[in-house]
Amino acid sequence: MVAFINGEYKDEEKALLHVSDLSIQRGYAAFDFFRTLDFKPLFLDDYLERFFKSIELLRLNNTYSRQQVKDIIRQLIEENKLAVSGIRMTMTGGYSQSGYEPATANLIITQQKLATPPEENIKEGIKVITYEYQRDLPEIKSINYLMGVWLQQKVKEQQASDVLYYKNNIVTEFPRSNLFVISKDGELITNQKNILEGITRKKVLELAAGEFPVIIKDITLDEINNAAELFMTSTTKRILPVTRVNDKIIGSGNAGQITTALHTSFLSFERSAVK
Amino acid sequence: MVAFINGEYKDEEKALLHVSDLSIQRGYAAFDFFRTLDFKPLFLDDYLERFFKSIELLRLNNTYSRQQVKDIIRQLIEENKLAVSGIRMTMTGGYSQSGYEPATANLIITQQKLATPPEENIKEGIKVITYEYQRDLPEIKSINYLMGVWLQQKVKEQQASDVLYYKNNIVTEFPRSNLFVISKDGELITNQKNILEGITRKKVLELAAGEFPVIIKDITLDEINNAAELFMTSTTKRILPVTRVNDKIIGSGNAGQITTALHTSFLSFERSAVK
Repeated sequence: MVAFINGEYKDEEKALLHVSDLSIQRGYAAFDFFRTLDFKPLFLDDYLERFFKSIELLRLNNTYSRQQVKDIIRQLIEENKLAVSGIRMTMTGGYSQSGYEPATANLIITQQKLATPPEENIKEGIKVITYEYQRDLPEIKSINYLMGVWLQQKVKEQQASDVLYYKNNIVTEFPRSNLFVISKDGELITNQKNILEGITRKKVLELAAGEFPVIIKDITLDEINNAAELFMTSTTKRILPVTRVNDKIIGSGNAGQITTALHTSFLSFERSAVK
Repeated sequence: MVAFINGEYKDEEKALLHVSDLSIQRGYAAFDFFRTLDFKPLFLDDYLERFFKSIELLRLNNTYSRQQVKDIIRQLIEENKLAVSGIRMTMTGGYSQSGYEPATANLIITQQKLATPPEENIKEGIKVITYEYQRDLPEIKSINYLMGVWLQQKVKEQQASDVLYYKNNIVTEFPRSNLFVISKDGELITNQKNILEGITRKKVLELAAGEFPVIIKDITLDEINNAAELFMTSTTKRILPVTRVNDKIIGSGNAGQITTALHTSFLSFERSAVK
C-alpha cells in the first residue's frame, strides 16, 4: 500500500514521524476518515469540509489547499487499486521545537482495507454501556481519544461493544459514533449539542427528511431506556442497531424495523452516490 | 544526541514512529520528564514511580522493568555527555492493528538541552489567565494536552505566559505545573484533588515542612486573588512566581519573599541531591 506523507508517496511501512511531532509529544492533531466504494471516495466534500474546519479550529499551520488534498487522494486511489477502503487524513501539530507550540503541520494520508461490522451485529444489534463524560472541544475531530481507549477495558468487562457518553443526564455520543433514537411514536431523534457532527449522521438526516418526523434536541437517559429502537452512525459502522444499554434490552432485542429500513436505504444511497 | 527507541540507541534524528502508533492515531501514551544536573538524574526514583503508575493506569502493554529503564537512562547520559539536560520517557499505545486497542507498547527515551525560565521571570514573576476546565484522568501523566496547546492563542492574546485551570470556582493546576498559594497569614497552601501530583510540588512540600504551616485543601478563585504570594512548580520551571492573574496584581507585583526563599532552598536541595 502507498501512503502520502509530507509531499512524498511512500510504501506505507515507511510512513514515519519523528518523535518531536506534536501528536506524539502532546496528542495534538486533527484527522478525518472516509470510505471508498468502487474506487470512488464517498461524500468526500463533506469530509474535507469537516477536516479543514478541525484544522482551522486547532490552529494548525496548514500549507495544503483542499484541492491539493483531493489530488493526493485521487493519486492514492489510483496507485493502491483498492475498490473498497478506508482513507485516513491526519494533520499534526508538526515538529515542534518547544514541544508545545504548533510548528509547520505534517500531513499523512493512508489507505487501508476496511473492517465493517459483522452481519450478526447488523441483525441483532450490539450492547453498549453508559459513562458520564463530555469530550473536550467536541466539534473538532482531534486525535484525543484518551477516555475512549481507556474505557475499552470497562466495555469488555461488561461484555459490551461500545460506550455511550452522557453528562448531567443528557446523552451525547459514542467515542466514534453518533446516536439516533426512534421513539415509540415513530419519531427519529438525534442530538445537536456537545457532539462531533458525523457525516453519516448528516446523510441519515437527509435520507429521513420527509420519511419520518425528525427531531433534533437534547436526549435524556430515560428516553434511551424507553426508546422503540436505537442505532449508532459512523463512517465505518454506517447504521448499527443498539439493542442493549447496560442491562436494559431496547425494543425487541433485535434490529428494529425502522433501523433496518434506514440501513437498506443508506446502502442504496451510497451506491447511487458513486455512480 | 543519542536517543533510545524500542531496544536501540540511535541518532536522535532517527527516533521515528510509524503512523499506526496509538499516540498518532488516538493521542494515547504516557510520558514523564526529569532533569539531570552534573550528569546525574534528579529525583529519578520519584519520576520512575510516577511514570510506571501512568503506564499501569493507562493499561499499556509494557515490556520494560524499572531497572531496565534506569539502565537505559544511565547509558544515554554516558553517551550524550550533557551535564545539564532534560530527559523525556514516552511509552505509547504501540502499533495498533485496529487503530484503537493498545498493542505492545513502544518506548522512546530522548535527552535534550534544557530551556529554564529567564532570570527576569524569576524576579518579576509571570502573568497567567484563568480558564474553566478539568483535565481527564488528571492523576495520569498522559500526552493529552489538547486544551493546553489550544489555549496558547488565548494566553498570548492576553499577554500572559500560562493558564490556570479551575472548575466550579475551585482552582486546580496549570497545564504543566502545580500551584502554591502563600496566604496573608503566611501559610503555604496547595491543592490535592483533580491534579497531576508534580515531583517538584512533592519536593517543595518536603522542604517547607517545619518551616511554614502547610495546608493541603481546595483553593478558591477568591483565595488566589487575595493571596500574599503565588507560585507554580514544575520540573522545568522549578519554583516560578505568579504575580498577575488576569488583570489582578498579586502581592507587590514582584517575586515575594517566601517564594524567593523557597527558590533558593530548592536550588541547594537539588545540588545536595546529586552530591
